[in-house]
Amino acid sequence: MHVGNLTNRQVVLKARPQGIPQAEHFEIRTAPVPELNDGEVLVRNLYLSVDPAMRGWVNAAANYSDPVAIGEVMRAFAAGRVIASRNPRYPEGSLVMGLLGWQDYAVTDGKAIRRQVLEADLPLSLSLGVLGLNGVTAYFALNACGEPKAGETVVVSTAAGAVGSVVGQLARHLGCRAVGIAGGADKARLCVEEFGFDAALDYHGPDMAQALAQACPDGVDVYFDNTAGRISDTVIPLINRHARIVICGTASVSSWEPWPSGPRVERHLLNKAARMQGFLVWDYEHRYEEAIAVLAPLVRQGRLRYREEILDGIEAAPGSIADLYQGKNMGKRLIRLEDA
Amino acid sequence: MHVGNLTNRQVVLKARPQGIPQAEHFEIRTAPVPELNDGEVLVRNLYLSVDPAMRGWVNAAANYSDPVAIGEVMRAFAAGRVIASRNPRYPEGSLVMGLLGWQDYAVTDGKAIRRQVLEADLPLSLSLGVLGLNGVTAYFALNACGEPKAGETVVVSTAAGAVGSVVGQLARHLGCRAVGIAGGADKARLCVEEFGFDAALDYHGPDMAQALAQACPDGVDVYFDNTAGRISDTVIPLINRHARIVICGTASVSSWEPWPSGPRVERHLLNKAARMQGFLVWDYEHRYEEAIAVLAPLVRQGRLRYREEILDGIEAAPGSIADLYQGKNMGKRLIRLEDA
Repeated sequence: MHVGNLTNRQVVLKARPQGIPQAEHFEIRTAPVPELNDGEVLVRNLYLSVDPAMRGWVNAAANYSDPVAIGEVMRAFAAGRVIASRNPRYPEGSLVMGLLGWQDYAVTDGKAIRRQVLEADLPLSLSLGVLGLNGVTAYFALNACGEPKAGETVVVSTAAGAVGSVVGQLARHLGCRAVGIAGGADKARLCVEEFGFDAALDYHGPDMAQALAQACPDGVDVYFDNTAGRISDTVIPLINRHARIVICGTASVSSWEPWPSGPRVERHLLNKAARMQGFLVWDYEHRYEEAIAVLAPLVRQGRLRYREEILDGIEAAPGSIADLYQGKNMGKRLIRLEDA
Repeated sequence: MHVGNLTNRQVVLKARPQGIPQAEHFEIRTAPVPELNDGEVLVRNLYLSVDPAMRGWVNAAANYSDPVAIGEVMRAFAAGRVIASRNPRYPEGSLVMGLLGWQDYAVTDGKAIRRQVLEADLPLSLSLGVLGLNGVTAYFALNACGEPKAGETVVVSTAAGAVGSVVGQLARHLGCRAVGIAGGADKARLCVEEFGFDAALDYHGPDMAQALAQACPDGVDVYFDNTAGRISDTVIPLINRHARIVICGTASVSSWEPWPSGPRVERHLLNKAARMQGFLVWDYEHRYEEAIAVLAPLVRQGRLRYREEILDGIEAAPGSIADLYQGKNMGKRLIRLEDA
């Protein structure tokens, strides 16, 4: 393949958003694909990932990684096929996923590649969802931070989402009672009917506190949270002694400037000798395959269900993050590139 | 000894306080000392303990233990001598400490006794302070929850207090940088000069945030907190990756009705993959002697300093809690009974 013939469409950050990134903060530009140097590979991206964490990646405030620069290709996970290789580790034809960016083609010396996708019998898109960061996040956030024990109650916010739905299913497999909190009756129904939660409730409902208390008659032992707002304020007073609260995201907070206030958590944590812990999946990068080794067989057996919401074409990328924060999507959001 | 001749002065809860218990919430009554049944011992209390946690014990709100009932002897730690025994485990003359209550004499079948005090070479009062719950709390809160490593920075609120001063000294012995926060220039000086903190600052000072940042040039790895208020709001933004925040008390919050608000902590915990954990010393009851075995030699060697503030006579008890919350005391507060 003569890479010089290819034109690369790239979604670049045009302006830095305050809060949630909207379509107007990005633009699509075209760029030539450079010739490969020794050690580099050229990846044709087939699926681009859309993740709530991307909000943090473009905000200027200090975060767990440096922000994407203005004019830079949007940082994103993507999965694709190696179409040219000068790196023996990733021969032509390999399927890979990694931080390949919102673009048609990625050239990398391999550092951007998170893993080679070896589950050739399963759809490649899963490597960005249930068998990607979402699944790996759910697995380690629940097991390493949540430390659930059989018989305990595990409450999950954003329970119909790509991570929450996996947390709930894994908790059930461990013998826990899984209670989901989701936005809307449809999503709550999905949690129970599709993902097998023992109970699920709509946080828009008239009396969430009462519904939650009824759904958790033995209190809350593990709270997996992706919201950091009103939902947490309702869940936390129900925690049991030695409860574990896992902070995986803060989706309900639209901006941290100014920094929002909420009920102080210290007294709850003290009275219950409970803990609240932030989870970053990067801490578990070296254990990635350990999670996949558990999750992939569950997918094959039909015991780990997932939903995907696939948008078509790179033009859909710029506006695709904002929707996540409006609770509109059902399942893992992906962008399929034209010739995937 | 014919116990029927003894008269027992008891401090009982007269009214349930909203917030901090004042003298008016207690009254002193006298009661006869009952004859001992088989298995019981009679303890002459020599020192009564005054602890910030007592606020929680008398408040009606759900807490980590049932509240003291109106008309009941105030729950309190005390240390004394067994003066009559029908229990072979605690022979006459034994020194004991435990939840013996704010009273001259305690009759117990042994359940109220936390431990027999075997450090006969050291003052009995220490069994309520540096070698009592305070020292044991400091030891396990720091080591089991804080998990400090040599070279890390450990910030301690209420650093001049009975627990905080031990936390700082133990952190130093482990090779950490210990930074204390205390109320007033005198207490800050005490932290450095008496307890050996590397730095200490007065939270009443003009720019605590700046002073703290200067005292912690490498950020904060462990934050031992007893305050849960403005001080924490200043410390938490400085935490490092994988920081551990230990919640040991909430002294800066005068009432939890209505529940106070503060800056949400979730984003800090997430960005830093940090944790915040409530510490209850009861969880370490079975490991009490393990802590004493470390702390007592340090006291004997002069490497673990302490301050005591001893009030005389049971009449001082009712008003003795409120002062703790005004930051007036210097060191562990105790009440010495008349013939101690």
